[in-house]
Amino acid sequence: MNVLVINGANLNMLGKREPEIYGRETLDEINLYLKEYAKNKGLKLDFFQSNLEGEIINRIHDAYGSFSYIIINPGAFTHTSIAIRDALLSVGIPFIEVHLSNVYSREPFRKFSYLSDVAKGVITGFGRDSYLMAIDYIARNVR
Amino acid sequence: MNVLVINGANLNMLGKREPEIYGRETLDEINLYLKEYAKNKGLKLDFFQSNLEGEIINRIHDAYGSFSYIIINPGAFTHTSIAIRDALLSVGIPFIEVHLSNVYSREPFRKFSYLSDVAKGVITGFGRDSYLMAIDYIARNVR
Amino acid sequence: MNVLVINGANLNMLGKREPEIYGRETLDEINLYLKEYAKNKGLKLDFFQSNLEGEIINRIHDAYGSFSYIIINPGAFTHTSIAIRDALLSVGIPFIEVHLSNVYSREPFRKFSYLSDVAKGVITGFGRDSYLMAIDYIARNVR
Amino acid sequence: MNVLVINGANLNMLGKREPEIYGRETLDEINLYLKEYAKNKGLKLDFFQSNLEGEIINRIHDAYGSFSYIIINPGAFTHTSIAIRDALLSVGIPFIEVHLSNVYSREPFRKFSYLSDVAKGVITGFGRDSYLMAIDYIARNVR
Amino acid sequence: MNVLVINGANLNMLGKREPEIYGRETLDEINLYLKEYAKNKGLKLDFFQSNLEGEIINRIHDAYGSFSYIIINPGAFTHTSIAIRDALLSVGIPFIEVHLSNVYSREPFRKFSYLSDVAKGVITGFGRDSYLMAIDYIARNVR
Amino acid sequence: MNVLVINGANLNMLGKREPEIYGRETLDEINLYLKEYAKNKGLKLDFFQSNLEGEIINRIHDAYGSFSYIIINPGAFTHTSIAIRDALLSVGIPFIEVHLSNVYSREPFRKFSYLSDVAKGVITGFGRDSYLMAIDYIARNVR
Amino acid sequence: MNVLVINGANLNMLGKREPEIYGRETLDEINLYLKEYAKNKGLKLDFFQSNLEGEIINRIHDAYGSFSYIIINPGAFTHTSIAIRDALLSVGIPFIEVHLSNVYSREPFRKFSYLSDVAKGVITGFGRDSYLMAIDYIARNVR
Amino acid sequence: MNVLVINGANLNMLGKREPEIYGRETLDEINLYLKEYAKNKGLKLDFFQSNLEGEIINRIHDAYGSFSYIIINPGAFTHTSIAIRDALLSVGIPFIEVHLSNVYSREPFRKFSYLSDVAKGVITGFGRDSYLMAIDYIARNVR
Amino acid sequence: MNVLVINGANLNMLGKREPEIYGRETLDEINLYLKEYAKNKGLKLDFFQSNLEGEIINRIHDAYGSFSYIIINPGAFTHTSIAIRDALLSVGIPFIEVHLSNVYSREPFRKFSYLSDVAKGVITGFGRDSYLMAIDYIARNVR
Amino acid sequence: MNVLVINGANLNMLGKREPEIYGRETLDEINLYLKEYAKNKGLKLDFFQSNLEGEIINRIHDAYGSFSYIIINPGAFTHTSIAIRDALLSVGIPFIEVHLSNVYSREPFRKFSYLSDVAKGVITGFGRDSYLMAIDYIARNVR
Amino acid sequence: MNVLVINGANLNMLGKREPEIYGRETLDEINLYLKEYAKNKGLKLDFFQSNLEGEIINRIHDAYGSFSYIIINPGAFTHTSIAIRDALLSVGIPFIEVHLSNVYSREPFRKFSYLSDVAKGVITGFGRDSYLMAIDYIARNVR
Amino acid sequence: MNVLVINGANLNMLGKREPEIYGRETLDEINLYLKEYAKNKGLKLDFFQSNLEGEIINRIHDAYGSFSYIIINPGAFTHTSIAIRDALLSVGIPFIEVHLSNVYSREPFRKFSYLSDVAKGVITGFGRDSYLMAIDYIARNVR
Repeated sequence: MNVLVINGANLNMLGKREPEIYGRETLDEINLYLKEYAKNKGLKLDFFQSNLEGEIINRIHDAYGSFSYIIINPGAFTHTSIAIRDALLSVGIPFIEVHLSNVYSREPFRKFSYLSDVAKGVITGFGRDSYLMAIDYIARNVR
Repeated sequence: MNVLVINGANLNMLGKREPEIYGRETLDEINLYLKEYAKNKGLKLDFFQSNLEGEIINRIHDAYGSFSYIIINPGAFTHTSIAIRDALLSVGIPFIEVHLSNVYSREPFRKFSYLSDVAKGVITGFGRDSYLMAIDYIARNVR
Repeated sequence: MNVLVINGANLNMLGKREPEIYGRETLDEINLYLKEYAKNKGLKLDFFQSNLEGEIINRIHDAYGSFSYIIINPGAFTHTSIAIRDALLSVGIPFIEVHLSNVYSREPFRKFSYLSDVAKGVITGFGRDSYLMAIDYIARNVR
Repeated sequence: MNVLVINGANLNMLGKREPEIYGRETLDEINLYLKEYAKNKGLKLDFFQSNLEGEIINRIHDAYGSFSYIIINPGAFTHTSIAIRDALLSVGIPFIEVHLSNVYSREPFRKFSYLSDVAKGVITGFGRDSYLMAIDYIARNVR
Repeated sequence: MNVLVINGANLNMLGKREPEIYGRETLDEINLYLKEYAKNKGLKLDFFQSNLEGEIINRIHDAYGSFSYIIINPGAFTHTSIAIRDALLSVGIPFIEVHLSNVYSREPFRKFSYLSDVAKGVITGFGRDSYLMAIDYIARNVR
Repeated sequence: MNVLVINGANLNMLGKREPEIYGRETLDEINLYLKEYAKNKGLKLDFFQSNLEGEIINRIHDAYGSFSYIIINPGAFTHTSIAIRDALLSVGIPFIEVHLSNVYSREPFRKFSYLSDVAKGVITGFGRDSYLMAIDYIARNVR
Repeated sequence: MNVLVINGANLNMLGKREPEIYGRETLDEINLYLKEYAKNKGLKLDFFQSNLEGEIINRIHDAYGSFSYIIINPGAFTHTSIAIRDALLSVGIPFIEVHLSNVYSREPFRKFSYLSDVAKGVITGFGRDSYLMAIDYIARNVR
Repeated sequence: MNVLVINGANLNMLGKREPEIYGRETLDEINLYLKEYAKNKGLKLDFFQSNLEGEIINRIHDAYGSFSYIIINPGAFTHTSIAIRDALLSVGIPFIEVHLSNVYSREPFRKFSYLSDVAKGVITGFGRDSYLMAIDYIARNVR
Repeated sequence: MNVLVINGANLNMLGKREPEIYGRETLDEINLYLKEYAKNKGLKLDFFQSNLEGEIINRIHDAYGSFSYIIINPGAFTHTSIAIRDALLSVGIPFIEVHLSNVYSREPFRKFSYLSDVAKGVITGFGRDSYLMAIDYIARNVR
Repeated sequence: MNVLVINGANLNMLGKREPEIYGRETLDEINLYLKEYAKNKGLKLDFFQSNLEGEIINRIHDAYGSFSYIIINPGAFTHTSIAIRDALLSVGIPFIEVHLSNVYSREPFRKFSYLSDVAKGVITGFGRDSYLMAIDYIARNVR
Repeated sequence: MNVLVINGANLNMLGKREPEIYGRETLDEINLYLKEYAKNKGLKLDFFQSNLEGEIINRIHDAYGSFSYIIINPGAFTHTSIAIRDALLSVGIPFIEVHLSNVYSREPFRKFSYLSDVAKGVITGFGRDSYLMAIDYIARNVR
Repeated sequence: MNVLVINGANLNMLGKREPEIYGRETLDEINLYLKEYAKNKGLKLDFFQSNLEGEIINRIHDAYGSFSYIIINPGAFTHTSIAIRDALLSVGIPFIEVHLSNVYSREPFRKFSYLSDVAKGVITGFGRDSYLMAIDYIARNVR
């Protein structure tokens, strides 16, 4: 089963700055770890990161027909992008929304998400483990 | 007279998913139909679609001097893009805002538009006919 | 096919005052033009105007069984009348909401409509052409 | 003892449309039933229905001196008419506000009433029985 | 010079109920007094009262061409009627908004007026004198 | 048919204090009266009062399978308890919300109810009669 | 009878700038005119103007026992000074709030007044005549 | 390592009603499954459920010194209980907030949580798996 | 004179955790100190603490007839419990609201109290001294 | 130890008007009493009252270096003066905010204070005793 | 060219307290530096500071005719004084609003300014340099 | 020292349209001027403009390690882009936010900025000079 992992704005900077919020691992290191972890559970992971909202939308469109599930950490787009919401609805692929940090303990504008109500579920605040949990859920429940 | 038809985020997915909301015609089919329809009324239509807000802004800038009117269905950008509003104001080309579905009967965040108050007018809810109405208006009133 | 065109509060003053907003044509002149225009498209138009919300409600009730479509420009009642909304819902006749001026570029209280979410669609800002577009839509799509 | 039963906008359509919300009985049938029911309890009921807010106000004014209680289902005027509130206050006749449907489970704008805080009480959601309850209360408590 | 004095919803009940708020004089007695008072200042007053918003709109329309000024106490319509606002704007007759009671010390919903920002001025809280002040202003300043 | 009558916080104080709001009858006296009244209509009433939200929830859970209808006056819990709402939804027993006093004419925070939109209906302001009305409705309509 | 006329912040600039809003007369000229006008009606006027909120409060305190009525145009303090409200309440002298311009047609923050609900009444928008109306009211009604 | 699993209001009804929202498993069945699952990961789970907010607070207090982590599904208390928030803060035991259903796609009042900003993280919408994910996180990261 | 001191949710944890906010004294130590302090002023203090809102309500009811004053620190219930407000109103015993910490410098939701407007007064932020001040007030003013 | 007692707008009117809210004692009488009371506790009190916000600010600035504590009853400035807040912060002298009346049971705009979150604590509603409590606190806790 | 530099509430305390926010320089030192700096650019600077809003208004009025530009740091008056706004508008002298600290990163109530929309421009957050920038702008652009 | 100057959406249109708001200079002309100006102050300026939010984010990321300061005029992205805020935070380069026009005197949605509270400071309304001021600040203060 193919799962697409999408990371939004600024997540390419992971491990490079603000380790007190996001940890010291780079996105590539996390992805490598996730790939292995998922493989052991019978899932094939593909990764996509972009700082351009539109490229994320295009990638979601392209996923139509090839992927059974999407794990998305939209970064700042969580709070501002109706277009990504629409893209996910337009392809009809179920998705899990994940966040590395606890968005509820940061600025007020990070409390609202344009994706949560149409997601399968939301996982917030566990660092790299947020992705692992999503993988576990898919491995256990989807086939 | 040249008219530019701009379609925003996710409208390339028309006819592929969610037909109960947007119908079964693809965007290309709609555009073909519109082109013929407009030709008979003496209008030359060009088309542009992008899922990147910035490419739409660039296209609007390029339209300056070449197009007399713009018909725009901004999709989700309707509710979030001040930058597209500014682009349309910066070129000074009059435009009509159109929507395929009735945005007022959907999620609350679709009720607000950053474009409506600076548009010539707004046409909402008539599917493909929303574009036809805009073409008719231009053909009847602008020369 | 019979279509009822309803005009609400103050639209009887069209062409008499504030031409810079509403144009110089009187409501009778517009209606005459619309009647001819619709006839050519196979539609029979009846007209009703009142400054009394309740008379508009009564007229909508009477339309039950005799009319297939309603085109309504509720004027100021757009923003204040739940009763007209209920009347339209009670007869179940599909309707199109039209406005002569662009309500989004006027006072803030003109941005909200009690009708839009239960209308087929909304046409705003095209003067007399707002009615023409509605007629075109009905002629093209309803039989 | 004389009791005036007032029904507001669109209640004359009862039993004609939307039976899933309001039931299949017409207003005349309900009134007939209520008249008999009240007679057995020693109350004489008069009925008034209008789709014109102002006619309801006039009827309330005329009730001054002739009626001891008013039962009012203002329909959509519940949420928009300060003038009916003032009319009821101006004659000083105690009144009960009734609604056929449960207004709290419908559109948000139906949750507010301009009458409730100056009513004796409010009965909501019991169809025809909402009127019966009001009659029972008056019969039991007022003389 | 002709001046039209319009009284809105429930003002026909003046002097009949709630004297602690509105005083004991009837509307007819007030009007008689005003007529004499104005005559001495060279103004001819006509009066209109209705509990139907639409009749007030019609009366305003009819005033076009015959009256130089309007004094209006819209009663409850002050807070709910965009249509009366539009009627006054549509005829372009300058008007003064008056209130018998101090609307700022009553229910919160009485603090907003749909007319004030397009009125010449507003006079609130002086009972019958509110009308006298408006007459004085017109007599002193308009010719 | 078995009906459970639940009274929430502070209703055990009925008749002991604040008679100008709630009357002089104690809750036991009211319950006795209601029991007899209901018996004559073929209903068997059980009563429960608690000042602990959680005990009310437990009582609602226990009612599952034994009661056909619930009449609930949640007192202050009306405005603060999502948990009681969930309890009522979880057992699926239809219920009527009643209030002794007119909650709309008291503090603003008493205007919102977490129960109303999922109740069969709401009866507000009639003192002991609020319960009688609910009993009457059940006796007349449910079997 | 002694009447104190208080003018608040910036009213000393009257006639010097922004004549399109406030007219060309200086405050001294207005006061002179008012003094004569009031004298003919049997009122003795004293005047006070200050740009310091606290001096206005002191002046109001000093008025206790010497003045029967206050006419106050608080200028910008209308919208920001609870302290002047308290000063007026503390001396218990009835007062009329006046404004030269129509505050409802200017910036939104000018629509709220901390004084209106405790004033006898409010007169807005009539230039110098706003004061005249207040004088007339006092002369006619207070002794 | 000892972990306390707390379930709040109405979660004892799991599997008994509304399976379309919460599934068909009872809370006891879920707990049994979780206990085994956790044991294999080296965690000892204790369980507590109550419909009384105060008993949950007491249980949290008692956990001080005996438990290293808390997994809490507060049910409806999520949105209303500052007291549970304070209890968790007072003992200083890190906790994970879990929800069976996706609270973002239900009533608006379920979107706010008094716990989220002081939780380690939040897991929403995965049914029984929400607890599993929390266990996995603790097993992987805490010792 | 008998005075009842009520402490709400989590105050039993005083002195055990978060000393930087609440100090190092336990509730029992505080109570002992207060008892002695009050005794010297001629007041007899009884104490009650509970984490269950309903038990506090019951205790307030039981105080009727036996206590002349209540000092209450409701803890988190301050901001969420209308039921405790109603309990205090139902017994009519005057009460003082006290808080150990300065609630205004903490989370925004701690700024609102359901009790303050019906309390004799409020004392906030003085640690144990908040209770002492309340005792002093009662000793000085009540007999 | 020197303590400065500051009273804001209109408190010089104490005992002269509105005794039902503020009592019959004048400010001088209160101050005299407080001075003696504090002397017995080893505190030297200075007093300052002004109706000018700026003079209060100046007095606070001058207190820098001479006073260890400030007791301030800002009167109406409580709700409107950021400048007094800044003055208190700029000198860094700890202060207690006191109010004679219970501000929570008066107009809604009296519920917000610009000082409370930076005060040591707040004492509200105890008349003269509010000052006594503040003195007691300082005498007991500060040296 | 003459430029008036106005500093509002508490800015006389500069350099005396809270250096972490405002720096260690006193206002006199800053003014001296600015005077020299401006002189070199051909501008003559006058300075005014007051903690009394009304004195600032008076100074602005007096500036009429003598100064070509105003640089104003209103301090706390920024957020509360409509009267200073009106004073600046009444004299018609163009002005620049400056702030030493970044008001956007402090308390929420510091984000709103009554002056910004009528200022030439706003400079925020650069300490003493905020004034220098304003001087530079005037020297470069105004003559 | 290297400084990056970033211009956001539509700023490439400078000097081409709407000169009454933004002046007649093109962005290239401005940049050329700034480059020279900065060079004289010892700063090396690089420029970047894009209408794609994501490209601006990428450019900010690339600036990490090469630039000591950023001057950014985000155009419309000011009000909508949390992603650019995050990008600036992620690289930790101090930045100054500048605007050509006075955003406070335009549409209300231009008053809020997602960048201001994390900027060094903000300069608004001075046209090309806004950039000059930022350069001056950096030249004077940063090394």
